[in-house]
Amino acid sequence: MVDIAKRTSATVIAPFEVGSWFENKRVENVQAMNHGGAARTAFGRVKLTVAIHSSSMPDGSYGGNPAGFLIETNEGNFYYSGETALSYEMKLIGEQTNLGFAVLPIGDFFTMGIDDALRAAQFVGTGKIVGVHYDTFPPIKLDRAAATKAAEAAGKELLLPKIAATIEI
Amino acid sequence: MVDIAKRTSATVIAPFEVGSWFENKRVENVQAMNHGGAARTAFGRVKLTVAIHSSSMPDGSYGGNPAGFLIETNEGNFYYSGETALSYEMKLIGEQTNLGFAVLPIGDFFTMGIDDALRAAQFVGTGKIVGVHYDTFPPIKLDRAAATKAAEAAGKELLLPKIAATIEI
Amino acid sequence: MVDIAKRTSATVIAPFEVGSWFENKRVENVQAMNHGGAARTAFGRVKLTVAIHSSSMPDGSYGGNPAGFLIETNEGNFYYSGETALSYEMKLIGEQTNLGFAVLPIGDFFTMGIDDALRAAQFVGTGKIVGVHYDTFPPIKLDRAAATKAAEAAGKELLLPKIAATIEI
Repeated sequence: MVDIAKRTSATVIAPFEVGSWFENKRVENVQAMNHGGAARTAFGRVKLTVAIHSSSMPDGSYGGNPAGFLIETNEGNFYYSGETALSYEMKLIGEQTNLGFAVLPIGDFFTMGIDDALRAAQFVGTGKIVGVHYDTFPPIKLDRAAATKAAEAAGKELLLPKIAATIEI
Repeated sequence: MVDIAKRTSATVIAPFEVGSWFENKRVENVQAMNHGGAARTAFGRVKLTVAIHSSSMPDGSYGGNPAGFLIETNEGNFYYSGETALSYEMKLIGEQTNLGFAVLPIGDFFTMGIDDALRAAQFVGTGKIVGVHYDTFPPIKLDRAAATKAAEAAGKELLLPKIAATIEI
Repeated sequence: MVDIAKRTSATVIAPFEVGSWFENKRVENVQAMNHGGAARTAFGRVKLTVAIHSSSMPDGSYGGNPAGFLIETNEGNFYYSGETALSYEMKLIGEQTNLGFAVLPIGDFFTMGIDDALRAAQFVGTGKIVGVHYDTFPPIKLDRAAATKAAEAAGKELLLPKIAATIEI
């Protein structure tokens, strides 16, 4: 992540402790914020949302509290929840913002699984889910057929793009 | 805890940072998970739930975020909230699971007190509370008569088993 | 803070890790609590509430989870949310306590901004907000006219006292 940030000079928008950690690695263009706050960007607005998880840095030090991102642009809005459990706080997003889609973890074990992710989509008010955080460790091997079927039964569209694939939403 | 885990070879199901700490102490059979995730066990399913508290390890290092446990078995389900404040997130449990009982802190000061615990029982949808986390420090000395009376007034059954006692629920 | 505590011998009511940090600095009269717990004081009752933020100590060590304070006295009650995002948990306060006013962050970026603070006032059930946590860093420069107008439109009174000013509420 540090290498990518330095190579691209991209703005790093992150919770305060994570942003400070990047700044200590001499990354420039860091917006070190905290939950409920929003940063203005060239493409719109990025708001830090609550996530229910833990947050340690690679050296084991405290990384603040986990966060997701609500991204608002002229072309549409989306919610990138980060690694999280289902939370009532997600209803705040559904009450405030029209989402085109949500990127939600569905792998279970380290995060919510597909059933809670479908409720999360209901809470934030979207019918379109990009499922992430599965298949990368043995305990989060995804049963794709079951997940897709559960999404269909809930009236939601579940997208499971391949790594590095580009999709139109 | 480390001694018990080694002596019994029991599976340790814990939030990620706590589980990793156990693994560093050479405890085997650790399931190091995070909130919203569930582990399958011989007796059923254990899901990590949100708790509102702090989480430090004995050496003062970061222990992830605090968690409770939702335990589902063929013989019935129960909720062990861990040390926590009352939380709206508890409603998620009431909406998803039929509980036989809930183990809730009632000592106040370090956790919720009896009044919030009675609301918590309402949120998770149970009429039966096993009260814990009281009497072990001066600020959490329990007024048993008052707690029992408050539970009765709320239409809840409050169990206060003695240490090492075995009870039928 | 340590100097003020020592000079005044005031009781320090704080989340457990923060309170322990004060005790390590030889501050006396510390009440090191955790969320959902309440301390009895000469003037009433102080309850630790949930805040959505991070909590690091000056040396970067883990400061527990962030908290606010619900202060109940014979002369009236108020809520000091601390640095926080908007949270559904605030509704618990509105359901339990009659508030005279709430002290809420309105600066955005590191905390909620004015729009979420107005919703927070609705959640906790007060019409009177003392706005704090703005103007102290470039990203949280407040547009006072806009904030005041937003509060008026929401039917709320927004107080923005000067530093060290004494106000009657």
